[in-house]
Amino acid sequence: MIRILGIDPGSRRTGFGIVDSVGSKTQYVASGVIRLPTGELPARLKVIFENISELIGEYQPVEVAIEDVFFARDPRAALKLGQARGAAIVAGVTAGLPVAEYSAKTVKQAVVGNGGAKKDQVQQMIMRLLKLPAPPQEDAADALAVAICHAHSMTHQLAIKGVSGYARGRLK
Amino acid sequence: MIRILGIDPGSRRTGFGIVDSVGSKTQYVASGVIRLPTGELPARLKVIFENISELIGEYQPVEVAIEDVFFARDPRAALKLGQARGAAIVAGVTAGLPVAEYSAKTVKQAVVGNGGAKKDQVQQMIMRLLKLPAPPQEDAADALAVAICHAHSMTHQLAIKGVSGYARGRLK
Repeated sequence: MIRILGIDPGSRRTGFGIVDSVGSKTQYVASGVIRLPTGELPARLKVIFENISELIGEYQPVEVAIEDVFFARDPRAALKLGQARGAAIVAGVTAGLPVAEYSAKTVKQAVVGNGGAKKDQVQQMIMRLLKLPAPPQEDAADALAVAICHAHSMTHQLAIKGVSGYARGRLK
Repeated sequence: MIRILGIDPGSRRTGFGIVDSVGSKTQYVASGVIRLPTGELPARLKVIFENISELIGEYQPVEVAIEDVFFARDPRAALKLGQARGAAIVAGVTAGLPVAEYSAKTVKQAVVGNGGAKKDQVQQMIMRLLKLPAPPQEDAADALAVAICHAHSMTHQLAIKGVSGYARGRLK
């Protein structure tokens, strides 16, 4: 079993989603949204770092996957998003976990089968894939999607390498 | 005495500069450049976080000041810079330190007396102000400049409030 923490970072809300990858199956563990307080940037980044560090402590994932955003909005928005992303990635690496990055297009392709899928299509597909009673909140759904994308990618790599399993960052 | 850590974050090099603010004087303590390895982003951000955390442990500053960048370059560059900045800020706040932000213009105005000063003017002025034998490297000079800017700002605030001193984030 590989437990994966997926993160969809944002300067207002950061989604998280945790799944277990067992053979070719992916099982839901937890998901949610870290809502950032208004106010000064350092305090906001601290909330991201601390919440993700707590999630790692509580759920003990062995891998982290994060969406690698690229969009043509203004540099100021990109800077804000980068800061949130930096805080989230640092929480993963300081916990000693490998952090993988996937483009939004790759994530949508892996989950919906269409790199240009809309937000609600991702939510609906996540609900079906993980057998949830309702579609998860948008940011949580994106975080679960990147975790599933990573699960697929890893399962594929393990199959190619012919290894039997995986323990805390090492093939065995 | 207020010991201040100034940071000039960048996606390739992150400058740092430490000064002691004693009354109206500012004394040089240390400065340098954290050069980031090439390779994957998470490992690069870890280097920023760990190096700044180590500097805080070693020099025990009570305040952190960081340049608040804004430029009209492309969003991809802004995202990269944001990530580096996020990692640096998180290192400060997780150490329990207040982190202040100053625009590049404010920093140059405070140090050179001209918000549009060139890089080498900042380096020359830092050398003179801190009585250094040679101008510091560019990123280190910018980091020392933001630390000095914060020192001036704090001294000014203390004078207004009529307080006698300052200890680890609290006026006394």
